[in-house]
Amino acid sequence: MASSKPHPLAQLSQDEFIVARNVVLKHHGPETTLFFRTTCLREPNKDDLVPFLIAEHDGNLSETTPRPVRCAQVEYDIISDNREFTRAIVDVNARAIVSQSVLERNAHPHLIVSELEAFQDACVESEIFKDAMSEFTLPEGFAVCIDAWPYGGTYDDGYPFRYMQGLVFARNMSNNNPDSNHYAYPIPIIPVMDLETKSIIRIDRLATGGSDDGLEPEKRGETPKKLFQHSHAAEYVPELLDRPLREGLKPLNVTQPEGASFTIASDGLIEWQKWRFRLGFTPREGAVLHDVCYENRPTFYRLSYSELTVPYGDPRPPFHRKHAFDLGDGGFGRCANNLQLGCDCLGAIHYVDSYLAGPDGMPTPAKSVICLHEQDNGILWKHTNFRTNRAVVTRNRELVVQFIVTLANYEYILAYKLDLAGNITIETRATGVVSVVAIDEGKTSVLAQNHQHVFSIRIDPAVDSYGAYDTQVVVEESVGRRIDLKTNPMGNFYEVERKPVTKASWADAEPRLNRLIKLEHATKRNAISGRPVGYKLVPPATQMLLADEESVAVARAPFAQHNVWVTGYRDGELWAAGEFTNQSKADVGGVADMVKRGDWFTGEEQESDEVEDRNKGKRSSPVVWVSFGLTHNPRVEDWPVMPIETQQIHLRPADFFTSNPALDVPSTKNESSVLLSCCGNDKTAGQEKEPLVQENPMSHLQGGGRDIEAKMAGAHIDEGDVI
Amino acid sequence: MASSKPHPLAQLSQDEFIVARNVVLKHHGPETTLFFRTTCLREPNKDDLVPFLIAEHDGNLSETTPRPVRCAQVEYDIISDNREFTRAIVDVNARAIVSQSVLERNAHPHLIVSELEAFQDACVESEIFKDAMSEFTLPEGFAVCIDAWPYGGTYDDGYPFRYMQGLVFARNMSNNNPDSNHYAYPIPIIPVMDLETKSIIRIDRLATGGSDDGLEPEKRGETPKKLFQHSHAAEYVPELLDRPLREGLKPLNVTQPEGASFTIASDGLIEWQKWRFRLGFTPREGAVLHDVCYENRPTFYRLSYSELTVPYGDPRPPFHRKHAFDLGDGGFGRCANNLQLGCDCLGAIHYVDSYLAGPDGMPTPAKSVICLHEQDNGILWKHTNFRTNRAVVTRNRELVVQFIVTLANYEYILAYKLDLAGNITIETRATGVVSVVAIDEGKTSVLAQNHQHVFSIRIDPAVDSYGAYDTQVVVEESVGRRIDLKTNPMGNFYEVERKPVTKASWADAEPRLNRLIKLEHATKRNAISGRPVGYKLVPPATQMLLADEESVAVARAPFAQHNVWVTGYRDGELWAAGEFTNQSKADVGGVADMVKRGDWFTGEEQESDEVEDRNKGKRSSPVVWVSFGLTHNPRVEDWPVMPIETQQIHLRPADFFTSNPALDVPSTKNESSVLLSCCGNDKTAGQEKEPLVQENPMSHLQGGGRDIEAKMAGAHIDEGDVI
Repeated sequence: MASSKPHPLAQLSQDEFIVARNVVLKHHGPETTLFFRTTCLREPNKDDLVPFLIAEHDGNLSETTPRPVRCAQVEYDIISDNREFTRAIVDVNARAIVSQSVLERNAHPHLIVSELEAFQDACVESEIFKDAMSEFTLPEGFAVCIDAWPYGGTYDDGYPFRYMQGLVFARNMSNNNPDSNHYAYPIPIIPVMDLETKSIIRIDRLATGGSDDGLEPEKRGETPKKLFQHSHAAEYVPELLDRPLREGLKPLNVTQPEGASFTIASDGLIEWQKWRFRLGFTPREGAVLHDVCYENRPTFYRLSYSELTVPYGDPRPPFHRKHAFDLGDGGFGRCANNLQLGCDCLGAIHYVDSYLAGPDGMPTPAKSVICLHEQDNGILWKHTNFRTNRAVVTRNRELVVQFIVTLANYEYILAYKLDLAGNITIETRATGVVSVVAIDEGKTSVLAQNHQHVFSIRIDPAVDSYGAYDTQVVVEESVGRRIDLKTNPMGNFYEVERKPVTKASWADAEPRLNRLIKLEHATKRNAISGRPVGYKLVPPATQMLLADEESVAVARAPFAQHNVWVTGYRDGELWAAGEFTNQSKADVGGVADMVKRGDWFTGEEQESDEVEDRNKGKRSSPVVWVSFGLTHNPRVEDWPVMPIETQQIHLRPADFFTSNPALDVPSTKNESSVLLSCCGNDKTAGQEKEPLVQENPMSHLQGGGRDIEAKMAGAHIDEGDVI
Repeated sequence: MASSKPHPLAQLSQDEFIVARNVVLKHHGPETTLFFRTTCLREPNKDDLVPFLIAEHDGNLSETTPRPVRCAQVEYDIISDNREFTRAIVDVNARAIVSQSVLERNAHPHLIVSELEAFQDACVESEIFKDAMSEFTLPEGFAVCIDAWPYGGTYDDGYPFRYMQGLVFARNMSNNNPDSNHYAYPIPIIPVMDLETKSIIRIDRLATGGSDDGLEPEKRGETPKKLFQHSHAAEYVPELLDRPLREGLKPLNVTQPEGASFTIASDGLIEWQKWRFRLGFTPREGAVLHDVCYENRPTFYRLSYSELTVPYGDPRPPFHRKHAFDLGDGGFGRCANNLQLGCDCLGAIHYVDSYLAGPDGMPTPAKSVICLHEQDNGILWKHTNFRTNRAVVTRNRELVVQFIVTLANYEYILAYKLDLAGNITIETRATGVVSVVAIDEGKTSVLAQNHQHVFSIRIDPAVDSYGAYDTQVVVEESVGRRIDLKTNPMGNFYEVERKPVTKASWADAEPRLNRLIKLEHATKRNAISGRPVGYKLVPPATQMLLADEESVAVARAPFAQHNVWVTGYRDGELWAAGEFTNQSKADVGGVADMVKRGDWFTGEEQESDEVEDRNKGKRSSPVVWVSFGLTHNPRVEDWPVMPIETQQIHLRPADFFTSNPALDVPSTKNESSVLLSCCGNDKTAGQEKEPLVQENPMSHLQGGGRDIEAKMAGAHIDEGDVI
């Protein structure tokens, strides 16, 4: 039933956002200036939310059902001699601060867009930057253009200053086009800004040799070095392209004359084809799926992107500082695109808006940051009865929850896809402009630097119920057996081996063992198979972090060393590389740290020596984190904007249902499809359409009579046969 | 230019087909009866075809251009005391036999549909089958229904009789529906037929115990055993379904108002968006792509499915005989579905027909066995300039060449997809009914047997030219380096290692090393990168054959033990497990055999001891074979018809082009898409449409003024602020 109160998982309303801001400002008083970084819903603790969700699923919600306290999480700097990063939890109904904490001095908060934007201005005003630039002569009509980046890891001892670095490019202004691609013209310096003083404190010089040269940057010359004498433009906007747009791609339209098949209730509940879920949007994660149920049976409590680390493999200092954590340093939500209609998606599209905090704490609209739409994904199941030639075929429809983020030069297209067969696919498409470096004329090297992208997806399972310890994780492998006269006389036998995950740990993908991660109900059994009700996850077999085990890169991102992590659930633990990744020296509070606690899931493990004292006797519920990577050694084809590289994680029911859940999907023919007759004439481009013809499939398989001899009869030459 | 003669790669015309038949019949004379199995184009030898293709690409074809001899390959049994399987190559223009060979006695040809169809009739007429069936009592209204299967491997010494086996089921006739699903009612016997005598010679009894019981079948009881007392129907046709069809799935139409973007010339040339290729269809392989070029530059000489082996993992004899080779024993082309409009595909569809040989050698129409259509596959590339908020985004269009095969209970949906970025994806979707076995009442076991599907795809590369030794294969890996003060001070360095494949060999997928197979031109270099012009293949990391190394299953299918095989090209060598897989005992002439020849590709290897004498001094061109598998331990959700399990092989350009080849794809908005407003009201299912609204993406990222202080300013509470 509808309630006047927002659902506990609903995003903050504009009013709630402003209340949270003002409560925090009032708390600090008129003498204190605050620099706001983040305001968003503070999700309720699981123990508080689950009873509410159970009542909701059971249809027992009323105005008197106990509700978790509605809270906002507000993060800001207190501006004083040294900025103090502070987090306040605000009860937006009571208009009161619930808790407040100041970040310890040696960690750094994420960056926000206004800080990134300030970087270029700081350079323009900096004498040392101007001096560095005087080493170079740009071609006529070129202007400097700087992308601010996080500073990478902390490599030095002592006080960790708060820095930002910039990649410097030149833009060809003579195009009179603000979208002329500056990434084609890298300038081999990196200015470094102190964020406390907002001043450029240092200019790092870059090596510009080929791959056979050393690591050292070239020394400053006597005369300015002329840049881009032989560089090639690399435009991607159509009006500047070096070739005409291709022709002949005729329109392909997706139309939904009756609208979309999903509904969104006023309280935010999204329902589609037996699925129901709630959609969150956070500044750090972007879209988040909550309380995902199929036929009112829970499947996942929460699905989210947790982290993305992008280390570059160029050993020449300071390129090791090109090592971003795109969620922890920046934030997928903060960098989400406003998705445009008809460009980003086809069909009937619904967009979801959000708010992000401005530096003054006011909500600034983040318009159309998520889109929901349906898409066809080909055949879902088919069977042709070869005896009758009758084919039954259904197509797969997917509900896509998509968002797209821009991190300076790079884009990621991120989607959760729910389908008719109970599957959830989490898809990542990498695109955008690869990060190039300056190379001296005549040198040969890779144009763009080799790098890796390693993602972490956090899966908080709730397989068929929300009880505290209802979900268990089991590793399954398929293992061949040796020939044995008694048990395997022909040598074709293989077995499925199951290993329950009893304590927090990691696992790697092992496709040779067909390793699966099963998320199962601890006690419920499938009525048909007798096996546990569950979902399965195939860990993606991808390359993990290549950096040296002793490197800062690895210390910051141990999550990127293994494909699967299983940890004990704690409220608010959402970050695979820890909460504070910006200028981190090591993972603090990430999955590797969580595993060290020795959280345990089943009885036998609780007394192990590896269990921290505080966890002894205190059982945990498992959370699964999936790491997968893309080792990107750029091809020429990735320039200047790369075609997508796609990666997918599949969550598939495994004895969750008692038959194919998509058996009831109608196999109706789509009447808008047409048959083309484009043979017979040279290049008749398919405009001729024939009426819809229905013939039996496999009609050529139909034999003659029922008599064996007739079927097996052959032929011999007759007088009349013309050859 | 058009020619009156068929293109050398065109399928046989109906006339040519009949000519070939009659030439063969005449050759054997009126006294001999022939049982025809296969008639299809005998593809020209590469050395004969390549000069023709080069002339064609160069626009230099004329009526006087030398053409390869146009030949048919005809396979048939000479019916005598023992059937002699014979292959004749017929010059269809000269109407003459070019060559003829009789198969050696210990190999067996593929089965054809009329043989499979004869099996049930043979059982019905068999006394021993009737006797075996008298052991069982079927429920009232059930009738026997038998699927013929190939006999599996040859396990016995001595003369290899030619057998076929049958899986026996019962169909509930009381449904009065010929599509009532008999696979729900397996009967635990396997009749075996002698194909020479067409008689049932033996009935194998099956074990029916649970997973904890032994391997032996139950002994015949005193009284007939009542079957299916507690079995559940498993219907999939909509009118018999145990549940109502789901509602609310609103139409999603794909319309192409201007028709398709591809053209098919009268000589069969298919052109689409800078791609051109020719489409073959063979009884064994189904659709085959020939002479695949992009902007008239060759990429692949031939792309095809080579084999699919399906061993079952149940150790209880005779289940080890459930080991089919779906191409070698049956044939994808012979089992191809007639694809129905609007069911199998959306949009503007073109179907391709073929002919298959009837037992009398006459061409029988195989209608609509391939479909060609375009589909949208989401965003292809995108970049948003965060300074201007301008997004440029293009969508990916794919040309799909699809065919679907039915092998008794199982279906495969097979597709070659060409896209706008120069990629080729070869996609396999497994669906259909899983193969179940009878289990005694009260026993617990897997419902369907665990099994594997291992595919082989044959890739005959021609990267940017058709010269004999122009293509080289290189294995590339990304390898991290240890910290080293001089070369890798920060530990972030990794390198790409390249190992040329110098001789025929195999390799496994190694995702941890990011192992790629590069298909490169031996001498041409990319103008931008200086690296070889090439395509890359990521070997799919899947589980390989699980059967014991000493088993017949492995001996028959060594191709299924490794992900990649590289062999020396020979005309007509198309079969990863050898040509004759039916009742094979070992791979003869498959990839493992080919590798043993010691074919070599570069100079250093030619004198190796591993090179057979006949190959010394005789360089080969590499052919690449990709094996990938699906270990299928059925879920309850796979019953009765399984939702697709999808696998994809990607061939991607790697320095083949001098920039993103899809840069010129127009980023026009699709005007048929609509915006849904489905929030605000409870369950307004998206019928309300708003006019198309265009806003800048990332408008929320836009900062305020250009002044640093303004950007970095925060806020403090004012008297007027209401909280």
